[in-house]
Order: sequence, then structure tokens, then C-alpha cells
Amino acid sequence: MPKAAFSDQQLADYLQARKAMVEKALRGLIKRGPAGELADAMRHSLMAGGKRLRPVLLMAAAEASGMPASKVLRAACALECLHTYSLIHDDLPALDDDDLRRGKPTCHKAFGEATAILAGDALLTLAFQLMAENSLALRRDAEALRLLALAAGYQGMVAGQVVDIASEGKRVAPATLDYIHAHKTGDLLAASLECGAVLAGAKPAARKALLGYGRHVGLAFQIADDILNIEGSAKKMGKAVGSDAARKKATYPAVHGLSAAKARLGRETRAGLASIRPLGPQAAPLAALARFVAARDH
Amino acid sequence: MPKAAFSDQQLADYLQARKAMVEKALRGLIKRGPAGELADAMRHSLMAGGKRLRPVLLMAAAEASGMPASKVLRAACALECLHTYSLIHDDLPALDDDDLRRGKPTCHKAFGEATAILAGDALLTLAFQLMAENSLALRRDAEALRLLALAAGYQGMVAGQVVDIASEGKRVAPATLDYIHAHKTGDLLAASLECGAVLAGAKPAARKALLGYGRHVGLAFQIADDILNIEGSAKKMGKAVGSDAARKKATYPAVHGLSAAKARLGRETRAGLASIRPLGPQAAPLAALARFVAARDH
Repeated sequence: MPKAAFSDQQLADYLQARKAMVEKALRGLIKRGPAGELADAMRHSLMAGGKRLRPVLLMAAAEASGMPASKVLRAACALECLHTYSLIHDDLPALDDDDLRRGKPTCHKAFGEATAILAGDALLTLAFQLMAENSLALRRDAEALRLLALAAGYQGMVAGQVVDIASEGKRVAPATLDYIHAHKTGDLLAASLECGAVLAGAKPAARKALLGYGRHVGLAFQIADDILNIEGSAKKMGKAVGSDAARKKATYPAVHGLSAAKARLGRETRAGLASIRPLGPQAAPLAALARFVAARDH
Repeated sequence: MPKAAFSDQQLADYLQARKAMVEKALRGLIKRGPAGELADAMRHSLMAGGKRLRPVLLMAAAEASGMPASKVLRAACALECLHTYSLIHDDLPALDDDDLRRGKPTCHKAFGEATAILAGDALLTLAFQLMAENSLALRRDAEALRLLALAAGYQGMVAGQVVDIASEGKRVAPATLDYIHAHKTGDLLAASLECGAVLAGAKPAARKALLGYGRHVGLAFQIADDILNIEGSAKKMGKAVGSDAARKKATYPAVHGLSAAKARLGRETRAGLASIRPLGPQAAPLAALARFVAARDH
């Protein structure tokens, strides 16, 4: 791979700064009202930590298109609200039935199932409110909203979720695995990049470059996650490894083998880097992030 | 009340024609994909019948602002998708635990809980996709989207739902009842009107008039529903009466008594009619609809 324009330290500083912007904005987001427990449940899941990868990607895409991150902060928060809703609903007893997420009780464990379902609904709706507000503030049309809804909806993330659930415990064909990866996690990651570009008023070529980056790096991110679930250190990751195998989850290493998975991870990372090369130094954070995804050990 | 500019027959023809437009558009809306059961579940609930009141109100508001109904058809479908998602999630075992809706099995009875949760999520997301597409087609900004998200979200419909669930079986204060009515059903009805006005490019005064109509007639609609649940004929309504009392639901007649409820229904209807009077003959369908809501026996 070509030499990074961004050092590891620069990337760490960049991620830290952007994440702090998102954390601060998210903290001030949800007002308490008569339906007080609802706001508490939304905040419980929204503030449970996490990498804030999607909002950071959206901000980095906007910056790569020449717009300051602060101007797309509400849209960045929208991505995190949407991601959080998907986790709350995934964790419900009728779906993955998980009691813990990031070491804290899942939303339905802490607040009951009814409130968890409604808190997820409310966060999904809030995501579109924030996107609309950011579009209005920037005087953009509804294109970023349309992209986000497509990526999150029944032909995007929700479709991937349905096929993932239907595949659990079964032998999965490579095409089915590709479908799950592309939609369950890939569509929203790619939309993070494309929405950032659209809100920043990127030219068609730059928008296409950022979308391409999103598709490749999104897949690389998923494969890296699956490899870490096999080879990773539970200590470094702060969570149990081997859970995918125990649940017979459809993963890239399970279907294609570990060495093919590592080769594919490298290929997708290189393709992602190639896609944004024409954008120049403004895209340095994104390039560094792609390398980090491929090399991370937690 | 002043003489109607629209006869009963004219109103019936108007409603029939607008409803047919919505039914046809909804039928063609959802494509089948690899997550085939998801699309089936969405269609099961979306095509289960119903008055299509919210899409018709949106179209009538656009027409009252001088825009043909056909130009806001996707936004009208969005309202129905959003309403249907709320019914699917309301019916879940963790919430109202209903097995039947409009004489058909509820979504989770027909497709299982996981698919029903995801079908609701997908319809909510589709609603915003359709709103965005309609805004883009009309070259409007994201204002209608912002209004819809506010009305549907954690300070709107979802908040009303949370307080309604928390109030079941309890003695409810008048202020709590007002909160439930205003948010659980009122916000989305009012948003139907305001979104129609915004998409049609209504002037501020017309937008305010239509929103006022929506608030008053939305409340009248809810009170009329509650009165019918006590006094209505099960035969004419096609559903059991007395279910609110059996469930100790917080309703206007339960809190204030039947005669106060009827007086309030009349007042709200008159206030709704007064609000749109300045809009003239373009608003005749809306005026007729308000009278119909107040007088209906099913």
C-alpha cells in the first residue's frame, strides 16, 4: 500500500476530535417530556458508547468534499440514531434476544420490551428529523434523505437483517452471504459516505468516489470484524470472541475460510483507497481510516 | 352550521376517487426481493383496508392550496405507510397484544414477531423515502419531511403511545387525556394537513388555516370514535363496541362524561370549519369531511 499521508497519531487525533463533537451533540439531543421513560430509554442506548463510525464517516466525507464537519453534525447524529435503533430492535427477544450490549443491559432489559420497541421507533424517526433539519440549514434538497431511507429500508438494512435471521444455523450459499453483508451493514456505511458528499454539494465524480470507498471499506470492515471474532483477543476487544461460530452465524471466514477472508479484506481495502485517490489530501482521514480498519486488532 | 358547499353524494364520490388513487399507488409500491417474507408482511398490513383518512387529508389539503392530488400521491402513501407501521407495532404482544385488525390476523400473528417488528421498521423508513421522493419531484425543500418526523417521533405520536400504555387501567387526569389525544392520534392527522399544504407551496396563512383545521378535526375525530365505541351499532361499525370501557382505556367520554364529549365534538368541528373558511371553495371537500366526522355513525 502507498505511504499514508496521515500518521497513526494524526488519525487518532482526528477520530478523537470528531467523536467528541458527535458525543457532545448526541448528549444535548433528546429532551425529556411527559413520556419521560421513553427519552431515558433512547438516551440509554444512544449514549452506551461505541465507535461512532458512521457519523465520523459522514463528517469525513463532507470534509473530503470541502465542507467543515460542524456543518453536517446533525446529519452525523442522524446516522448514529439510525444505527442505534437497529441495535435496539436487533437485541429484542423476538430477534437476537441479547441481554447485554457493550457491557450494559440492552434497552429492553433495562426498560421493558414495549418501551424498547418504541424507543427504537423514536430514534429511527428522529434520524429523519435531523437529516431534514441539516438539509434545511444547508439549503439542500431531500436527496440525502432519500439515500438514507433507501439504505435503511426494506431493500437495504432491514432486508439484510431478515435474511441474516433466516440464515442463522443454516449452511449459507456465498451469494446469500454477500447479500447479508451488502445490506445488513454495507448499505448504511455506504450511505454515511454518500450523504456526507451530497450534503457538502460534492460534484458527481466525487460523490461516486466516496460511495465506492464506502462500499469497499464497509465490506472490509465487516470481514475484519468476522476475522476478529475468530482470531481476536477477548481482552483487547472487551467482548467475547468465538460467538459467531457458537451461533453458527453466516460470516465470510465461515463460508470461504480464514485465508480467503484475509485476502478479500486486503483487496477491498486497496479498492477503497483507489476509489478516493482522485480527491487528494482532503481525503487523507478517510484513507487512514481504511488502513486502520484493515489492520485493527480490536 | 352553515350550509355545506358539498352534498353528501359529492363527498362520497370525492372520498371514493381519492381512496382509489391511494389504493392503486399502495398496491404497486412494494417490490418483492430476496427478503420476500418481509415484503409480504408489509403488504399484508398495508393492504388490509381502512379509511385511508390520512392520505386523503393530505391530498385534500394540497387541493385546497391549489395543487392537484396526483402531484402529492407519494407523500399521501407515505402517511399511510407511517400509520400502518404504528398499527403493526401497537398490535405486538409487548404492547396491545392484538390478534385481529380489521377482521384479519395482525402482522405478528401472520408472520411472527420478528418479521412484524422489521416490517413496521421498514414501513416507517419507506414513509420517509416516499416523502423525500415527492419533495424532490416537486422541487420542495425538506420542510414537509421535518414536520412529519416531528409529528411521528418521540415528542409526537410515539410519546402519545407511551403515555397511553402507561395510563391503561388507571384513573387518568384530564390533562393526561389531552396529551394522549393530542399526540397519539392528533399530531399525525394535523401533519397530514400541514404536509399537504407545504408540498403544495401554500402561503403561511393557508398553511396555518389547514394546520388549525387538522388540530380541531383530529380531536373531533378521536372524540367521535370514542363516543361510537359506547353508543355505536356493532353491526354498522363492523367491530365490537364497548371495548374501551372493558379495557379501561382513557377516553374523552370516560373522563368527562358522554354529554360533555358530544358538546366538545360539536365545538371542535365548528372551530375546524371556521379555520378553513378563508380558503373558499377549494376547501369544500375538507369542510364536508369535518361535518361527516361529526355526524358519522360508523
